[in-house]
Amino acid sequence: MLNLDFHPTGRHFLQIPGPSPVPDRILRAMSLPTIDHRGPEFGALGLELLVKIKQIFKTENPVIIYPASGTGAWEAALVNTLSPGDQVLMFETGHFATLWQKMARRLGIEPEFLWLPGDQGWRQGVQADMIEARLKQDIDHEIKAVCVVHNETSTGVTSDIAAVRRAIDAAGHPALLMVDTISGLASADYRHDEWGVDVTISGSQKGLMLPPGISFNALSDKAVKTSKSARLPKSFWAWDEILEANKHGYWPYTPNTNLLYGLNESLDMLLGEGLEHVLARHQRWAAGVRAAVNAWGLEIQCQDPAVYSPVLTGVVMPDGVDADAVRKLIYERFDLSLGMGLGKAKGRMFRIGHLGDCNDLTLIATLGGCEAGMKLAGVPLEDSGVLAALDCFARHPLDANR
Amino acid sequence: MLNLDFHPTGRHFLQIPGPSPVPDRILRAMSLPTIDHRGPEFGALGLELLVKIKQIFKTENPVIIYPASGTGAWEAALVNTLSPGDQVLMFETGHFATLWQKMARRLGIEPEFLWLPGDQGWRQGVQADMIEARLKQDIDHEIKAVCVVHNETSTGVTSDIAAVRRAIDAAGHPALLMVDTISGLASADYRHDEWGVDVTISGSQKGLMLPPGISFNALSDKAVKTSKSARLPKSFWAWDEILEANKHGYWPYTPNTNLLYGLNESLDMLLGEGLEHVLARHQRWAAGVRAAVNAWGLEIQCQDPAVYSPVLTGVVMPDGVDADAVRKLIYERFDLSLGMGLGKAKGRMFRIGHLGDCNDLTLIATLGGCEAGMKLAGVPLEDSGVLAALDCFARHPLDANR
Amino acid sequence: MLNLDFHPTGRHFLQIPGPSPVPDRILRAMSLPTIDHRGPEFGALGLELLVKIKQIFKTENPVIIYPASGTGAWEAALVNTLSPGDQVLMFETGHFATLWQKMARRLGIEPEFLWLPGDQGWRQGVQADMIEARLKQDIDHEIKAVCVVHNETSTGVTSDIAAVRRAIDAAGHPALLMVDTISGLASADYRHDEWGVDVTISGSQKGLMLPPGISFNALSDKAVKTSKSARLPKSFWAWDEILEANKHGYWPYTPNTNLLYGLNESLDMLLGEGLEHVLARHQRWAAGVRAAVNAWGLEIQCQDPAVYSPVLTGVVMPDGVDADAVRKLIYERFDLSLGMGLGKAKGRMFRIGHLGDCNDLTLIATLGGCEAGMKLAGVPLEDSGVLAALDCFARHPLDANR
Amino acid sequence: MLNLDFHPTGRHFLQIPGPSPVPDRILRAMSLPTIDHRGPEFGALGLELLVKIKQIFKTENPVIIYPASGTGAWEAALVNTLSPGDQVLMFETGHFATLWQKMARRLGIEPEFLWLPGDQGWRQGVQADMIEARLKQDIDHEIKAVCVVHNETSTGVTSDIAAVRRAIDAAGHPALLMVDTISGLASADYRHDEWGVDVTISGSQKGLMLPPGISFNALSDKAVKTSKSARLPKSFWAWDEILEANKHGYWPYTPNTNLLYGLNESLDMLLGEGLEHVLARHQRWAAGVRAAVNAWGLEIQCQDPAVYSPVLTGVVMPDGVDADAVRKLIYERFDLSLGMGLGKAKGRMFRIGHLGDCNDLTLIATLGGCEAGMKLAGVPLEDSGVLAALDCFARHPLDANR
Repeated sequence: MLNLDFHPTGRHFLQIPGPSPVPDRILRAMSLPTIDHRGPEFGALGLELLVKIKQIFKTENPVIIYPASGTGAWEAALVNTLSPGDQVLMFETGHFATLWQKMARRLGIEPEFLWLPGDQGWRQGVQADMIEARLKQDIDHEIKAVCVVHNETSTGVTSDIAAVRRAIDAAGHPALLMVDTISGLASADYRHDEWGVDVTISGSQKGLMLPPGISFNALSDKAVKTSKSARLPKSFWAWDEILEANKHGYWPYTPNTNLLYGLNESLDMLLGEGLEHVLARHQRWAAGVRAAVNAWGLEIQCQDPAVYSPVLTGVVMPDGVDADAVRKLIYERFDLSLGMGLGKAKGRMFRIGHLGDCNDLTLIATLGGCEAGMKLAGVPLEDSGVLAALDCFARHPLDANR
Repeated sequence: MLNLDFHPTGRHFLQIPGPSPVPDRILRAMSLPTIDHRGPEFGALGLELLVKIKQIFKTENPVIIYPASGTGAWEAALVNTLSPGDQVLMFETGHFATLWQKMARRLGIEPEFLWLPGDQGWRQGVQADMIEARLKQDIDHEIKAVCVVHNETSTGVTSDIAAVRRAIDAAGHPALLMVDTISGLASADYRHDEWGVDVTISGSQKGLMLPPGISFNALSDKAVKTSKSARLPKSFWAWDEILEANKHGYWPYTPNTNLLYGLNESLDMLLGEGLEHVLARHQRWAAGVRAAVNAWGLEIQCQDPAVYSPVLTGVVMPDGVDADAVRKLIYERFDLSLGMGLGKAKGRMFRIGHLGDCNDLTLIATLGGCEAGMKLAGVPLEDSGVLAALDCFARHPLDANR
Repeated sequence: MLNLDFHPTGRHFLQIPGPSPVPDRILRAMSLPTIDHRGPEFGALGLELLVKIKQIFKTENPVIIYPASGTGAWEAALVNTLSPGDQVLMFETGHFATLWQKMARRLGIEPEFLWLPGDQGWRQGVQADMIEARLKQDIDHEIKAVCVVHNETSTGVTSDIAAVRRAIDAAGHPALLMVDTISGLASADYRHDEWGVDVTISGSQKGLMLPPGISFNALSDKAVKTSKSARLPKSFWAWDEILEANKHGYWPYTPNTNLLYGLNESLDMLLGEGLEHVLARHQRWAAGVRAAVNAWGLEIQCQDPAVYSPVLTGVVMPDGVDADAVRKLIYERFDLSLGMGLGKAKGRMFRIGHLGDCNDLTLIATLGGCEAGMKLAGVPLEDSGVLAALDCFARHPLDANR
Repeated sequence: MLNLDFHPTGRHFLQIPGPSPVPDRILRAMSLPTIDHRGPEFGALGLELLVKIKQIFKTENPVIIYPASGTGAWEAALVNTLSPGDQVLMFETGHFATLWQKMARRLGIEPEFLWLPGDQGWRQGVQADMIEARLKQDIDHEIKAVCVVHNETSTGVTSDIAAVRRAIDAAGHPALLMVDTISGLASADYRHDEWGVDVTISGSQKGLMLPPGISFNALSDKAVKTSKSARLPKSFWAWDEILEANKHGYWPYTPNTNLLYGLNESLDMLLGEGLEHVLARHQRWAAGVRAAVNAWGLEIQCQDPAVYSPVLTGVVMPDGVDADAVRKLIYERFDLSLGMGLGKAKGRMFRIGHLGDCNDLTLIATLGGCEAGMKLAGVPLEDSGVLAALDCFARHPLDANR
């Protein structure tokens, strides 16, 4: 069997902002025997999954489950709603927003990319007022959709989606609102229906604590209606046949059964704990990690406290320090994986994931590895981040009455 | 945890022609911890997988691995090689050939569907001479690809792909040859390079003994070259970025890591046993199952012994018998899943899968369940199929010298 | 990792009369993380286990759970109740009764071994009238205990324990009644309290469907009282400290935590199904297997239909046939393990286990392997046993209304 | 399935001095299917295990493997070598030495318990000079064995066994040397042959990283010879039948197969890493943990640096602090299990296990939980132990050249 162990003992600390560690409960669920995806047990499972997943998105509308990783769900959102040459409005919040925009272009759509000067877009998130202004100019309603990233995995900024909806409404514009919350779902507050999102894109390997391989499109009535006249070619991603088959708990083609077992277990865990508790847990962890970064005297990538991500924190290295060299040292010495700086941020920051199947001490270990590694790499630190986080966690118990 | 057990004890016999039973070795491999898909261990795993998978397709050319189920790989083959309005030639071998043809039409391609009268196409497989004749008429080379199914999962017919290649060559036609061997790979003899296939489509949940969720495109130089000018929109399925990232063992987006662990284990099992041994094992099982069907005095769906499938056998019910009622009775009484008749064959046949992680006694149990179930359902049987198969297995040991 | 696979594919058929196949549910439960055996979760688990296990023994009295395999529980029963030189009465029902008698002698006890001439004791089970006669002679009550085997694993004879109790009572004798039902528990009807058993010995690897490593002593008040004055040295096996610690769900020394997780799952499975249903299932399977042996025209080791075992069936080979050679051929050709003839029966019989995590088709497969193997070995068979069993199973559904 | 999770997410930190966390590799190995313990695969496994286990004990002599937890192996050592009324010399090093002495007394042996005044024996380990002096007085060689604990799990003192051997030799005394290294094996340096130990007792749930349920007796020629005339009753524990059956890789009764799979994997892991590397790893962790305790300004239970345990560290609470209340707070707030004070040390200390499947960051997390918990409980601490340990680990890499 595959040997993944660089280090001889102990568990690897996988503290990247996804894939996040998969709990044993989910791995065990995934090891149930594969069944006939056209048999009665499967239909019962399918119906149950399709109901439970809605609660995670906070929607009464259908959620499409794809047997494909998250990038596929980006494509699905676009090809189901748009026609060749359609204009869409996007906002440069980071590396993933940029990739989605490239995908749109590649698929024959015309994305317009709003941005802030310098690296400000990567540190402040979506500016709803810019979207409103642009939509107001679009008198002929050439723009068919506004596409934004909720939790930008490359930066640790969680944009205000309700504000984007208000901007669209203020402009009186009919564009669809499509939101990527691949790394936000089940970790950051998200409300598909309340915020008036038309298509929400998400994936399995972050807050749902699953391996990668499942992705989602949550829909609105308007999105479904739009899809009937959208002319980009589609078959695998097409909502219509899936919605039809889903009525009985099935899929038009073979779903990835064992990952769905894992999804079922994940949903039972999250809904059993209570989604609000899950979100509070992430906020608390994020506060502890930011306390550490502040104690170190380092910069947090996100510059607007209103949009700090509860899922991950980007730690900016001082000028002249190669963040990737620091990450490598930490990985080799302390069996800890951190997220690299992506795109424009390459080599300038590392990202700490604090999501999913963690606990206080997991994060203390993580911050300990970061602190010791940065010291060994010669990064000047003001104070101990580990102690700051420990203090934060000690002073703020998650459940006073649990 | 999910309870999948309709029956209180014992293992369910999953003898549908895929998903096939997943060996415990593979389930255990899939339970390894998810790692950083951008870290060094992942790159090493990726490179190893990409080399080993070629041996299964018998190719020196690249094989694309998608984090999506098989239907996605059908779409990938089409969108990477074709442009809107392109003509392709397909052959109606059964339900899956029909579905692929519908997909092509949905994607904006113009499929021409060759067929034999009545249900003959569903019982005899691809007729290479008809393809040759049609291509010879196509003087202007409007037909861009010939798309056929190798092992038709809905019928148990394994068409002669080498003959199709000879037909194309005899017609002197430049069309690409694209072949679906989703249910044939690693069970039926298949030779991507030797047979001059341009794109082979396959999936994980059959001969590879994995859960569904991975699919493949094996390529040819010609296919790669063609893809550069193909104009159907594509991004998730696009070969170019994947081929580029694969050079270092990575993927341009998140791969489904834990299923790849399973794939790695599957490849070690198959290559460790020896692919020729794997194929011989399937031929032997198929012979035993056909001996049973013959003893029962029932018809095999495939009418040409040259193209009997080593993977599954379609058993035709006598007129007036509802095959689905028989299957349901067998499922409820004997904890055994059989494949249903699909499309035109609905209610007229059931399909016995004899692939992957089976052994002689698994199949004896399967045939026992079929025999007892058919008797209970009042299907007239001439003789005992169980005993015929048992005799066949006893007289023909797999390894005289093992 | 260990490779246990002699055959390249498929599941091994482990049809020995224990260890029996361990269901995946139990293996998954055993893979939960080991916890502190002095922590609060453990105490809660312990208390729950100690209540549930009583239902399996049908007792209101305490059941001792040892972190040791079954032979240890034999020793425990003896050392807790007897003093050096004590006389006990035993009955030669087969190989395991003989081993227990040897153990008693080795521990300094004086066993008297009742037996029937020839191999009759091995084919008819305990003769309660002989016990009654012997006890009546023992006017001075020198005999301190009657020790018998309930389900003799070496022969497939399930003796009548209620009759032994009646015999003791009829003799007005104060001897303890100690019964080994290592291979009978949770497969054959067993009633510790109703039958007035003082110590019942059992183990994990048979009807409980666990791996070996756990064993049991179910007690009576009289046994506990007797133990206070018994003078054989004991510490690890001593009931007193265990009973004391069990009050709070703990053990005086480290219990084998992960096997206890398995036991908990096993109890949930058995009690969830309903113990009476479990027993009916075993009786039905046994009837099918005996139908097969009868059809073959071979002798069943047990000659008294009143004491046929529902757990295993001994199949006697015709004179001149080496049963072990037949077993070896079946093992090598059909990936099927059968029990060997033990002690006096060595080479003369093989034993088919039909217990625990089986189903009808598992047994059809087993009988198929036996039938084909015996034919290959030249054993003359009258008729097909596989078909006889299949017919038996088909005509007698387990749950008409399930 | 059993839910062991008090806390909703993350892994529990099990940092008691055994049972220690079981690596996933071992849990996976334990989930292999149970096989026939009289079949050929089992014999091959048995022979392999019996060879590999010797390397862990550093012996050329036989090692007995019991399907029972560690306390059983204590009993086995005594009943195989001693006769009723025999005198043995023991030394009070802590709770476990005391329990072993009680067991000896219960089994009808006459233990003489050497001790230091106050709690000194519990803080300094075995005093070889006292043993030597006592043996010199025993002119008639009434003392049949010297029984000492190597790594005292209740205190964190690892006594000098070579010195005990020298003491026996200096006294010219024929007593057997019997040593309990249940919690020392595969973590602390141990040399059965070189140190002239006659019987070494050990168990599975500590340095071997297995669940509890397996225990060991490593023998010497002299021990085996002595066992032939020892008169304590024994059967389950008797070496003779086990040694005989072990010649072919089998056991005289049912071994606990799935735990043996785990043992096989454990041995492959430890021998693959190299035993010296394993020991160095433990010494390094212990140094880090002691650096933390020193920084806190708290007392280490072990007062002689020459016998600091590499396996666990006892942390003494200041007068007036209830160590169990501190432990409970840490458990509830930080999902961390620590060892309680046992026997005389109850409520006065807690024990940190630093053995087996750990790594630097696991221990940083552990020390973080201790530090924060003690602060919350009002224990006055001088300085940060977490930072001291982090510094220690950072300054001393395990493998400069790995």
